Amino acid sequence: MSRADKPILVFQTDFTYAEGAVSSMYGVVKTVDRELEIFDGTHELPKFDTWSASYRLYQSLQFWPKGTIYISVVDPGVGTSRRACVARTTDGYYVVTPDNGALTHVKHYIGIEEVREIDETVNRYPATRGVAVFGGRDVFGYTAARLASGIIDFEGVGPAYPVEEIVVHDIPEPSAEPGCVSGILEIDDPNFGNAWTNIPTSLFEKAGFAYGDRVHVLLKHGEETVFDGDMQFDRSFGFVAEGEPILYNNELEKLALAVCQGSFIERYGAAFGPDWTIGIRRA
Amino acid sequence: MSRADKPILVFQTDFTYAEGAVSSMYGVVKTVDRELEIFDGTHELPKFDTWSASYRLYQSLQFWPKGTIYISVVDPGVGTSRRACVARTTDGYYVVTPDNGALTHVKHYIGIEEVREIDETVNRYPATRGVAVFGGRDVFGYTAARLASGIIDFEGVGPAYPVEEIVVHDIPEPSAEPGCVSGILEIDDPNFGNAWTNIPTSLFEKAGFAYGDRVHVLLKHGEETVFDGDMQFDRSFGFVAEGEPILYNNELEKLALAVCQGSFIERYGAAFGPDWTIGIRRA
Amino acid sequence: MSRADKPILVFQTDFTYAEGAVSSMYGVVKTVDRELEIFDGTHELPKFDTWSASYRLYQSLQFWPKGTIYISVVDPGVGTSRRACVARTTDGYYVVTPDNGALTHVKHYIGIEEVREIDETVNRYPATRGVAVFGGRDVFGYTAARLASGIIDFEGVGPAYPVEEIVVHDIPEPSAEPGCVSGILEIDDPNFGNAWTNIPTSLFEKAGFAYGDRVHVLLKHGEETVFDGDMQFDRSFGFVAEGEPILYNNELEKLALAVCQGSFIERYGAAFGPDWTIGIRRA
Repeated sequence: MSRADKPILVFQTDFTYAEGAVSSMYGVVKTVDRELEIFDGTHELPKFDTWSASYRLYQSLQFWPKGTIYISVVDPGVGTSRRACVARTTDGYYVVTPDNGALTHVKHYIGIEEVREIDETVNRYPATRGVAVFGGRDVFGYTAARLASGIIDFEGVGPAYPVEEIVVHDIPEPSAEPGCVSGILEIDDPNFGNAWTNIPTSLFEKAGFAYGDRVHVLLKHGEETVFDGDMQFDRSFGFVAEGEPILYNNELEKLALAVCQGSFIERYGAAFGPDWTIGIRRA
Repeated sequence: MSRADKPILVFQTDFTYAEGAVSSMYGVVKTVDRELEIFDGTHELPKFDTWSASYRLYQSLQFWPKGTIYISVVDPGVGTSRRACVARTTDGYYVVTPDNGALTHVKHYIGIEEVREIDETVNRYPATRGVAVFGGRDVFGYTAARLASGIIDFEGVGPAYPVEEIVVHDIPEPSAEPGCVSGILEIDDPNFGNAWTNIPTSLFEKAGFAYGDRVHVLLKHGEETVFDGDMQFDRSFGFVAEGEPILYNNELEKLALAVCQGSFIERYGAAFGPDWTIGIRRA
Repeated sequence: MSRADKPILVFQTDFTYAEGAVSSMYGVVKTVDRELEIFDGTHELPKFDTWSASYRLYQSLQFWPKGTIYISVVDPGVGTSRRACVARTTDGYYVVTPDNGALTHVKHYIGIEEVREIDETVNRYPATRGVAVFGGRDVFGYTAARLASGIIDFEGVGPAYPVEEIVVHDIPEPSAEPGCVSGILEIDDPNFGNAWTNIPTSLFEKAGFAYGDRVHVLLKHGEETVFDGDMQFDRSFGFVAEGEPILYNNELEKLALAVCQGSFIERYGAAFGPDWTIGIRRA
């Protein structure tokens, strides 16, 4: 195979770039096959947060060329009995990850066709066989490199196991009726301070809403009301004045909350997860 | 064209690497053309700061191979009526950016030969046509990838418009007479805490100064005096003792203020912009 | 030479990615030779900390393909008389760095076969000859690029000088007797908050210890006791309960201290260096 026939490797971890871990991991990949292309997904996932790992996979995977191998290493159980796996999605990508919840959103929203447990008797970097704490370098990156380079095929990863056994978090479904939708805050945009719901904008439009509408938003964390007020629904931030809240159609075509040139999550102390519920109706 | 005949893409944004945005944006580029090479300029530009975007373009563009395409996405008006454009510089580079001030320094110090508005009926990622909030992925990165891969030529970007219509910030000119120069703090080095002026070191030397001179620096923010004292002018930080301020010739051969192994901007609370004026004379 | 015959360049600096410095440095490399591959080691080394630069080189270099050129730029003496050099290791890598202590661990643990001072009359980026403050762009990156591209060979770097003249920090040796080992905290993992000792796990095992043992750890900073208590010795974090301290075998097969899903260095205020001594015996 020539260079451009080999899948791209994209890595996301909670390692940060503060020390030599990412470098060592990438070095092993290039030692397996000098021709492989490597990209940073992000190395700033919240530590030990398999939900965020899961969401970021779902958010980004679909924009890469078919066949891309995404390596996700948020691995609080490293060195213990959680499975190390490679999943093949129904739309033709591979995800290499500890099977600890990181496949939740990809399985739910995209679909997983087949999953295999990494056979570490074969797919483990030989020079550091005594090390149990750095799966990213010794197992996940190494196995991904072997798969991308054609040293092993998908069967060569290790034994398949039932897709139903994949460890997943619960994902509540959004609901809609005319003039009223509800769902959860599913993730944030930590940089710009936006809060992303799990409600597809298409569902919202079917419920009768259109850009320019004034809507009423009720956001709760468990029983506590976090936001209870009106705002505009529009296609982008600049349709309201600086500092005003807005409901908008985000980059994955779901509803999201922002403050124009401000931070919704900081101003209102919002976070995300199944206990962050949102209801939207006409103002 | 072979891989090495295609321009490099360098990206700078205010997205950070905290979530999946950069990954999605780069994925689209590689989906357009697997052979394209991508580099991070920086993804840590101050949020919404088109002045900093402009300065960083000017700072770095010239060091890349001719033909390099620099994509700059600091876009507080995303989804509104500001133009999305591609500019060709007089020295043979391309800049892909919202036309919102980000071309100020490149236009002023280097020169722009031609600018074209991106025709989004053609140059827009088709799969996310309903999304208005992610120009980096859907318009700027996608158009840059098409241009770099040869799918479109420069004319294929969209209609040209007068270079005089490019949105720019005001840039005050430095002035000099024998024994005395003045200018502004034009940008900072936020990591090492240095403050960079807009005064070319060559202008300073023409005014009669040489390495080793003691100089008097008066730094004001509007009417307020921020620094008023003497320091050495020299070629690098190590020519003064640790903790001492110094006036030096920076990486773009302009005058700059530092504290040896310390931070000038933190110690004196300095920032940058047209209202940060500096005057230098003999001590 | 074809692309894949040319060594990879890996860069580590204390520049951060906050502004345009890394971009300018990489641009020069690609201007020298468009085919060269560049990777980020890290750009977040602690400012001016040549000990950390030294440790990160040692930590990561060995995982890259033989022949890789690692450029390390932590350079508090930039523009002054410290040597700029290229070292060839006994295991076939090149390190391009100011000779200011950054070669300490590579020299000690791996070995340096030959070192050459960069001749800046030849190996200096011509367009910025007046600049003394940006060795990363103008000297180290430029020279590394010329070496990788084959424009110069190792002799072309400049004159060799005795390996014994390389500037190094002191590295204390660990010691062991049956049932008792001692050493220092040699570095940290700042992200996960682990503290890494200089004691090889193999030495610890020869002293009679095995995974699952309860051990007593005495950690001192100079004369002050920082930690004095018992913990488990095991292969990975998940073998103790969340929040418990653990002694484990780290990614370089040395002993290290962690708190399961917590931060040892934050909880106990630990740092690293020759004055951070540790003694371990049976609990």
